[in-house]
Amino acid sequence: MKLYFVTSNRHKFEEVLALVKELESGIQLEPLGNIRKLEIQGDSLDEIVLFAAENLSREIRVDFFIEDAGLFIDALRGFPGPYSNYVYRTIGCEGILRLMNGITNRNAEFRSIIALCFRGIIKVFRGVCKGKISNEVRGHFGFGFDPIFIPEGSQKTFGEMSTAEKNMHSHRAKAVKLMIEFIRTFIK
Amino acid sequence: MKLYFVTSNRHKFEEVLALVKELESGIQLEPLGNIRKLEIQGDSLDEIVLFAAENLSREIRVDFFIEDAGLFIDALRGFPGPYSNYVYRTIGCEGILRLMNGITNRNAEFRSIIALCFRGIIKVFRGVCKGKISNEVRGHFGFGFDPIFIPEGSQKTFGEMSTAEKNMHSHRAKAVKLMIEFIRTFIK
Repeated sequence: MKLYFVTSNRHKFEEVLALVKELESGIQLEPLGNIRKLEIQGDSLDEIVLFAAENLSREIRVDFFIEDAGLFIDALRGFPGPYSNYVYRTIGCEGILRLMNGITNRNAEFRSIIALCFRGIIKVFRGVCKGKISNEVRGHFGFGFDPIFIPEGSQKTFGEMSTAEKNMHSHRAKAVKLMIEFIRTFIK
Repeated sequence: MKLYFVTSNRHKFEEVLALVKELESGIQLEPLGNIRKLEIQGDSLDEIVLFAAENLSREIRVDFFIEDAGLFIDALRGFPGPYSNYVYRTIGCEGILRLMNGITNRNAEFRSIIALCFRGIIKVFRGVCKGKISNEVRGHFGFGFDPIFIPEGSQKTFGEMSTAEKNMHSHRAKAVKLMIEFIRTFIK
């Protein structure tokens, strides 16, 4: 079956594509990048993604999903959270490290929310990856705050991991796996 | 005439109310706080406010306006900009000072955008207040980032000013004055 991933972020698309292939899901993933996703402001990723999916479902007549993710840092009350993209584009990894300077509690988590619109019904899948903010920028892989996030169970940042390795830990991979499991029950 | 200000921020309401009275505008300002303003994510305040106003105009049948404001810091590529409210609630004034630590270019500006829905037509008014980020938090008046912003032509931060004094400089006051001028041409 064909499934459209509404995103303009090629990194995200590649991560999900790698998983879809690895899991031999029978899904043929296609990017859909030229559609405007209406994102509201909200402190929870859930409401942002659900609003956007409901909106898109009125325009798109094929099976599709969208994904939103954010980095939530404990000591910064969840900042940058739902606005991670904007914060990355302005103050970057460097800004986050500056804010964390001298703070010993470096716990953080990446959250991913997927809203799948499948056969006209919207279903949500979530993935969380706990970890820590590194002391310096490390690695050139991935995107966004990947070079300053060390997932639990690893010494490397996401920025130092290949796509396959990141997918063993990541929030997004967890959410995507749940979605694929769900779809499989229908297409078998 | 009665004019509704759709806001849940009592500080904003008081600032605007003081101006409306001072200018003897003939406007009777009322707060409208129990209505959800739909805010989209966007790098420009204009698109956020216009979208919200168009949305509200379908629900509200009286003359009303909404206002959105943000602090745009040059050295931080405009951060925190349209997400000033969220950034204030998470990293606060302290966080901004930390990000500005050691940075000599402390130029910043507050921007205010008003969308007025008057007799069924939407009109936009803008106000800008240029200034600098202070070296420390000063003053307990105002709200948000007021205690770290020094407007051009003053030594005080907005946090050290009374409402009347802040209204002599502020972005919001400039936008409100333009709106009042506009309305006056109709109600005279």
